[in-house]
Amino acid sequence: MELVTIDDIRQAAKRIEGDVVRTSLVPIDGTVDRTLWVKPESLQPIGAFKLRGASNAVAQAVGRTSTVITHSSGNHGQAIAMAAAAHGLRAIVVIPDDAPQIKIDAVRARGAQIVLVPGEERASRVEQLAAQKGALVIAPYDDHDVIAGQGTVGLEIAEDLPELPGGATVLVPVGGGGLLSGVSTALAALRPDVRVVGVEPELAGDAAESFHRHTLIRWPRSRTARTIADGLRSDLADRTFAHIEKYVSDIVTVTEEQIIEACRFLYRRGRLVTEPSGAVATAGFFAHPQVVGDRAVAVISGGNVDPHWYAENVVTSSAPR
Amino acid sequence: MELVTIDDIRQAAKRIEGDVVRTSLVPIDGTVDRTLWVKPESLQPIGAFKLRGASNAVAQAVGRTSTVITHSSGNHGQAIAMAAAAHGLRAIVVIPDDAPQIKIDAVRARGAQIVLVPGEERASRVEQLAAQKGALVIAPYDDHDVIAGQGTVGLEIAEDLPELPGGATVLVPVGGGGLLSGVSTALAALRPDVRVVGVEPELAGDAAESFHRHTLIRWPRSRTARTIADGLRSDLADRTFAHIEKYVSDIVTVTEEQIIEACRFLYRRGRLVTEPSGAVATAGFFAHPQVVGDRAVAVISGGNVDPHWYAENVVTSSAPR
Repeated sequence: MELVTIDDIRQAAKRIEGDVVRTSLVPIDGTVDRTLWVKPESLQPIGAFKLRGASNAVAQAVGRTSTVITHSSGNHGQAIAMAAAAHGLRAIVVIPDDAPQIKIDAVRARGAQIVLVPGEERASRVEQLAAQKGALVIAPYDDHDVIAGQGTVGLEIAEDLPELPGGATVLVPVGGGGLLSGVSTALAALRPDVRVVGVEPELAGDAAESFHRHTLIRWPRSRTARTIADGLRSDLADRTFAHIEKYVSDIVTVTEEQIIEACRFLYRRGRLVTEPSGAVATAGFFAHPQVVGDRAVAVISGGNVDPHWYAENVVTSSAPR
Repeated sequence: MELVTIDDIRQAAKRIEGDVVRTSLVPIDGTVDRTLWVKPESLQPIGAFKLRGASNAVAQAVGRTSTVITHSSGNHGQAIAMAAAAHGLRAIVVIPDDAPQIKIDAVRARGAQIVLVPGEERASRVEQLAAQKGALVIAPYDDHDVIAGQGTVGLEIAEDLPELPGGATVLVPVGGGGLLSGVSTALAALRPDVRVVGVEPELAGDAAESFHRHTLIRWPRSRTARTIADGLRSDLADRTFAHIEKYVSDIVTVTEEQIIEACRFLYRRGRLVTEPSGAVATAGFFAHPQVVGDRAVAVISGGNVDPHWYAENVVTSSAPR
């Protein structure tokens, strides 16, 4: 298996320019003697970084197929649906039946055909449907082109982050590891002064365990389903684990309460709406000062959140303490 | 009275670089056959564009005084407090006693001394305190350097907005008119293909009335206080009216319900937290398609909003219709 290269990521950046937002690094005030920038991928049209990888993969499917298919907890599904529509392809999205309704509705609104299945059956149903319909499978993270597309997040951080004595840490949420793979590949090539650290919910801490034991460990879905960060319940794939082993400095975990508190912080201090998965890297900044150091970028991976949950647990609970 | 020039704005941009965030133009999806970008000044450290003008004015006060003083409904007060702290000056902020508590607390947290007074007494109390303490007054909008600083919003839009056949419209909220003065000055110089339109709450529609009657009309504070957009209750000053008469294409008004619906739209589609005043330009995009045309930038002026109001009226009411 070939790893993604910096050239793959540079080509992806050219390919997806115009389809995705070039997000800023936004400094967040109120962190007391430490410096935090966020990269708000929640400002992408679908509200998540996933549009980068999907756009890169779909752009390369044009002329090879009329239909793309994927499985997704929602944001990747939306991304594939949007990218397919932009390139004149049909999209089929297989979604686990425990995904939040807001995400299912959003994929449907992008014009994709939706198939709801139990979480465990996702992969097999995708293969079955792909064979029936002659569709090209674009996996959410176990895909070379998708990883290269997500790597453009790292390319932009490399361009925007000032060079600082003592360096800085880039914090990236880990689910299946596509974003972490791409970002760490880009920064290893372009910014050796920067350390890349993955952040994961303790309740879905399979990547941290894999990283520290140097072998890919999978947790059953029944176990990872406990975290509120529904975008980060996936296992790593061999492909993403290979990138992570090579380029990532560390993977740390955070508690559910730390994740929700990070959502509150980003609402209050950043005026940014984030889903729990999207706030996990920011939670890592506060939970692990010794690992992270005094200066960090936290990637906000997405902002598609149930409004009622968000109003009650984040907005009205966000008063400074 | 001399008007602000494009050179003043260019110098301001150099002076405040590093103190303010270079915000992106973010395309917002879901506008049906029209194109909307927003410029989210809510992502400034104080949550509002006011940091630009305040930083430009405070930077020039260094060496001339040890104390700056202003009156403000909150965001300008926070901005002066933050800019003063950054430049080693003391700040006194006179705030009307009907300002939201969240804004008063935020100014206090920046280390400024706060004086609460009835709205009508703001100007006189500032003069009195300035004389007593030898402090330099930095008015929220009736100030050459403040307008030049706000103009950097226009400079950045000029740099980022693609040149489009048929041009585009830039929508700017109007309270005292400082932001509209600066933005329209910059775009008149740099982008003659772009029209600048002010947007104002109908319930504080003094600027629209002034613009259409070609004479500066002031509404009593008891009248403008009815709008929920508390940042836009101010009158124009002679200085801002002069810029607006020269450079602005039109001023339109929006209803309270249109403002709140724009907050919901920006939450739902932009994942951006905005205060009502901050959403007024976006409300204008939807309310006045004939004036605005098919492509527009809406400046989001700020995001400091009461969490309980926001949770109830925006977040949980934000489901697509």
